[in-house]
Amino acid sequence: MTNTRGKATTVLLVAQTVFIFLFAFTSDYADVAGARDNSDPREHEPHLDQYYPLYQDVHVMMLIGFGFLMTFLKNHAFGSAGFNFLLTAFVIQWSLLINGYFVSIHEGTPGKALFSILSLLEADFAVATVLISFGAVLGVASPLQLVLMATFEVVFYNVSYYLGVHVFEATDVGGSMFIHTFGAYFGLAVSFILSKFAPSESSKEGSDYKGDIFAMIGTLFLWLYWPSFNAGPADGNERQRAVINTVLSLSACTVVTFAVSQAVNKNNKLDMVHIQNATLAGGVAVGASANLITTPFGAVICGVCGGLVSTLGYTYLQPALQTKIGLHDTCGVHNLHGMPGILGAVLSSIFCALASPETYKDSVAVIFGSEEALQTQAGRQIISLLATLGIAIASGVATGLIISAPFLDRLTHHELYNDETFWITEEESEALETKKSPTSTSSETDSL
Amino acid sequence: MTNTRGKATTVLLVAQTVFIFLFAFTSDYADVAGARDNSDPREHEPHLDQYYPLYQDVHVMMLIGFGFLMTFLKNHAFGSAGFNFLLTAFVIQWSLLINGYFVSIHEGTPGKALFSILSLLEADFAVATVLISFGAVLGVASPLQLVLMATFEVVFYNVSYYLGVHVFEATDVGGSMFIHTFGAYFGLAVSFILSKFAPSESSKEGSDYKGDIFAMIGTLFLWLYWPSFNAGPADGNERQRAVINTVLSLSACTVVTFAVSQAVNKNNKLDMVHIQNATLAGGVAVGASANLITTPFGAVICGVCGGLVSTLGYTYLQPALQTKIGLHDTCGVHNLHGMPGILGAVLSSIFCALASPETYKDSVAVIFGSEEALQTQAGRQIISLLATLGIAIASGVATGLIISAPFLDRLTHHELYNDETFWITEEESEALETKKSPTSTSSETDSL
Amino acid sequence: MTNTRGKATTVLLVAQTVFIFLFAFTSDYADVAGARDNSDPREHEPHLDQYYPLYQDVHVMMLIGFGFLMTFLKNHAFGSAGFNFLLTAFVIQWSLLINGYFVSIHEGTPGKALFSILSLLEADFAVATVLISFGAVLGVASPLQLVLMATFEVVFYNVSYYLGVHVFEATDVGGSMFIHTFGAYFGLAVSFILSKFAPSESSKEGSDYKGDIFAMIGTLFLWLYWPSFNAGPADGNERQRAVINTVLSLSACTVVTFAVSQAVNKNNKLDMVHIQNATLAGGVAVGASANLITTPFGAVICGVCGGLVSTLGYTYLQPALQTKIGLHDTCGVHNLHGMPGILGAVLSSIFCALASPETYKDSVAVIFGSEEALQTQAGRQIISLLATLGIAIASGVATGLIISAPFLDRLTHHELYNDETFWITEEESEALETKKSPTSTSSETDSL
Repeated sequence: MTNTRGKATTVLLVAQTVFIFLFAFTSDYADVAGARDNSDPREHEPHLDQYYPLYQDVHVMMLIGFGFLMTFLKNHAFGSAGFNFLLTAFVIQWSLLINGYFVSIHEGTPGKALFSILSLLEADFAVATVLISFGAVLGVASPLQLVLMATFEVVFYNVSYYLGVHVFEATDVGGSMFIHTFGAYFGLAVSFILSKFAPSESSKEGSDYKGDIFAMIGTLFLWLYWPSFNAGPADGNERQRAVINTVLSLSACTVVTFAVSQAVNKNNKLDMVHIQNATLAGGVAVGASANLITTPFGAVICGVCGGLVSTLGYTYLQPALQTKIGLHDTCGVHNLHGMPGILGAVLSSIFCALASPETYKDSVAVIFGSEEALQTQAGRQIISLLATLGIAIASGVATGLIISAPFLDRLTHHELYNDETFWITEEESEALETKKSPTSTSSETDSL
Repeated sequence: MTNTRGKATTVLLVAQTVFIFLFAFTSDYADVAGARDNSDPREHEPHLDQYYPLYQDVHVMMLIGFGFLMTFLKNHAFGSAGFNFLLTAFVIQWSLLINGYFVSIHEGTPGKALFSILSLLEADFAVATVLISFGAVLGVASPLQLVLMATFEVVFYNVSYYLGVHVFEATDVGGSMFIHTFGAYFGLAVSFILSKFAPSESSKEGSDYKGDIFAMIGTLFLWLYWPSFNAGPADGNERQRAVINTVLSLSACTVVTFAVSQAVNKNNKLDMVHIQNATLAGGVAVGASANLITTPFGAVICGVCGGLVSTLGYTYLQPALQTKIGLHDTCGVHNLHGMPGILGAVLSSIFCALASPETYKDSVAVIFGSEEALQTQAGRQIISLLATLGIAIASGVATGLIISAPFLDRLTHHELYNDETFWITEEESEALETKKSPTSTSSETDSL
Repeated sequence: MTNTRGKATTVLLVAQTVFIFLFAFTSDYADVAGARDNSDPREHEPHLDQYYPLYQDVHVMMLIGFGFLMTFLKNHAFGSAGFNFLLTAFVIQWSLLINGYFVSIHEGTPGKALFSILSLLEADFAVATVLISFGAVLGVASPLQLVLMATFEVVFYNVSYYLGVHVFEATDVGGSMFIHTFGAYFGLAVSFILSKFAPSESSKEGSDYKGDIFAMIGTLFLWLYWPSFNAGPADGNERQRAVINTVLSLSACTVVTFAVSQAVNKNNKLDMVHIQNATLAGGVAVGASANLITTPFGAVICGVCGGLVSTLGYTYLQPALQTKIGLHDTCGVHNLHGMPGILGAVLSSIFCALASPETYKDSVAVIFGSEEALQTQAGRQIISLLATLGIAIASGVATGLIISAPFLDRLTHHELYNDETFWITEEESEALETKKSPTSTSSETDSL
């Protein structure tokens, strides 16, 4: 297989060269990041102060949160944190361009992507979507396949987002639909197709003790910065409410996850997989409703439902899907992002159906646009969910077929979940070192 | 013991159900997080911008800081990070309610807890108090006992806080008294009682190399975000001063800790326990004085004293207390929070005694309320400290007696400091996996 | 060697005592952190809100970023994270004073260091410089030598900075020259001299699997908060542009590093050393140009060049320098900070040469001072780079000679890269514990 690895180098260099040309000829700073012009009396938006602290929180979620959440695999921590890093760097550039083109089309001036702190935040949302899909095929797809997957996914993500936000005018501040549902079902579709052409099961899939502690770093950073993810795009009262709702939902979800994880085990022991993952479902489930007036009660209900669905999904549904239809899902993204994402969309539809102009006062215009729009919002939430699911699955299947092409570095059984496939590992560098300095003994490296 | 574990599930589900009812009928958003009302000319407070970045820093301290600081135990990392997580999620909800009721009582409109970014920050302060107590009984108390402990502690914490802030009108911006002293002595009282009914010593208590590095993640995040903890509730010049004083105190404390840690070891070697913990005592010691005009000199003196007291406490006092009166203190919270907390209260009293209206100018009103109040502030600091100590110890003893009840899942000797007690661990899941896939060999998991 | 260790205690206590006196008699709060004075109509600067979130990001980079990046060494993780922590705490205090004196001299009122959030941020920049130098001698220098090195380095850093900023009026918002180039060549000079008097090669130098994952925590926090480092001192449009340019440069650099790392390995496998380090060179390379109107294209080019230079440096140049001239560089700071720093200065000179008043509009005054200054800016960038290099190498050699004095705790061959030299390690505490509790077996500690 060795010589196929060079293809990833080629693809990355070609892609980066294309990016350079696209940045050179189709992008620029937004006014607020361009040259100062004291004669221009307009106050440019968006201000850095308003978005930057929340952007950095989201940035931590992408690189540390997702990256370390996936390091639970005992022989695949380099690949988990490493390819997560590569995908983030790749997708930031690609989605700055693609998101920017879609914005320019929407604004009637197609052609140029304009960059500001807000476009950086939105690029990270595209990154999140890709990293969710990555979780479904973790350890099964080669970096070459991952980069190609990401390239297609960013485009379809934008199609789904454009349709949902600009055509159906759905409200989804935390991305329950456009990020979590889309990313999960796209990734699951890719995984389903991949497993038709190559193996996905191996005894190397599994965690070890220290690996599970590394994964908790990812879990906790995702959990604690999730309010910034859900509130990032909002403003004013809506933003403060999104923070409060998200904290409430996550907290309730975590308590329920601990309770249920113990209950479903025959020895009443806790399962680290649940604690690492299902505790986060509250953030997904409240996502689309985070800026709505759910009341604290409603936010807590979101979290309780999210924790239940996710923990039971990990315990009962995931093994069944694997056995019955051969759907492999390394990180269980169906339980953490897929079902809670759908749940979040449905809950948002219910909250919209219950919303009244009396309760929302002047927030109606900010959130829904108008009182007329509010009357049909509940239905449009569901239509948008269905459209998201359809696009995700269809484009995921197509992408899976493309990246299953035999010349694209498919993995053999021995190469699954295995850092030795793509990384210089301890044993090899040890061998090198021993040659250089004959005094070193192997017992030294084993001592820790 | 297996069947008693189910009780934790029951208690968590009952508690979460009670929370749901309390959120539904006794809570709401504060105005600033409610519906927008453009006809309302009042500018609502608190603004998200002012508190959110510091809130998130404190949030990191709770989940990553405390969580990982406790992962030094070699067989108890799941329990350390995991139960820290559960307690945080549980106490956020419970203290949002209880803190909110106390605020509503103080404002003469008892009954409804109102949520804003400020109440989230204050909920995290209650979380900190509980997590400090958790450190005293880490590995010794079952999750069921911990949840019950937290339930009582949040109420008594509020009593102590109400008395100190609203009756004695003490100044304690960083919580030297209300958080650190209270949390430490409450937890020590609980630990003292627990050890009368069940074992607390085991050969499993101890660290390993990689575990100590995980613990450094906790230490460093606590250290670097501590300025946000001490400055969070402050404003304007006082807030900037609190940041500066805290950085100075922590830096001086760290240098002294390294110096003394080497000096007290017969081989002049550094002790990781000191570096992980005593370096933080500067944050505790300057807490109550952080917004005062201590001058940079005064802030550095706080840190030097904190580092000295804490390092010497770990080296000499803790083993003596364990041997002489059987006081077990897993994380040494007496050295990190207890004594430095008392020190911080005493130092704040001295700084108040030295304060003059000439030096403080218009900050007198902001910090002390009035010039008359300033004259008695030094004494009220000490009275408040004594009241805090009294309430902490008395309520800690009572709580310890309650959670020592035999039906509440007390641990046996074998179950101490041991993740196998409450968690599905590697060995078990390995056994499961081997059954599923006979090709896996145990050497695979040992290879790392 | 045991008894020489006490010297570090003495030096630290003497230094801290000197700091106390200097803080007492030569420092104070800046106006904005002093007593409020409502009768003073001036709006004091700098406001906490403007700098604090970015300051905290930089703070994370110092303690977690640098600290964990260095934990890759398999037997030296305590020393990496621990001495990084000590140096940070030491240099914060020392550079608050020294930086403050230089500012007071520049402002014509020599004598008093005044502290604000901005001086804390600038203290962290001095910390960064010292930690870069630390990387060159990691595992080779004793803590005593490190503290002395830091003491001298902060002074020379200020000389170089003063010359560059106030005499040559160079622009270097992200510190490509004053921080990265200076820190790297100062540290390399120290390392070069040290290796003339004591050994620097040992079979203990090397990483292990889990250690490399710890190091990724450092890498990722450095990567994701780097925009705050480069944009921290800027303001308005320039600040938003610096954030965008840095994100673009780092992303492009990361993609190129992955591509090239595979390409230079004969089995086309990725090298963790490259992923941990060369991915960050984009932040260094764009540093001096971050607030310039490089256009997105220019920023991406900075990253591509940075990634190339750094990855090739790790692969080809570093082994050659080690073999040919005996230059030991534990962390490869020459590849991450040295060459990318020079590259950054040269690129900034090119961008200045290309800059026109038409493009920059009113940003000309903010960045360059005046249109006349802009015309000579490109040349002054290069002069400033040469001055920085000269001061760094000369003062590094002098410092290396001083700290190589035989009574200053030089390390023997056995003590290199070895935590047992300075820390109580598992084996020893295990031995202690076994004596206390005879039931404990060594198999317990090995089980993880």
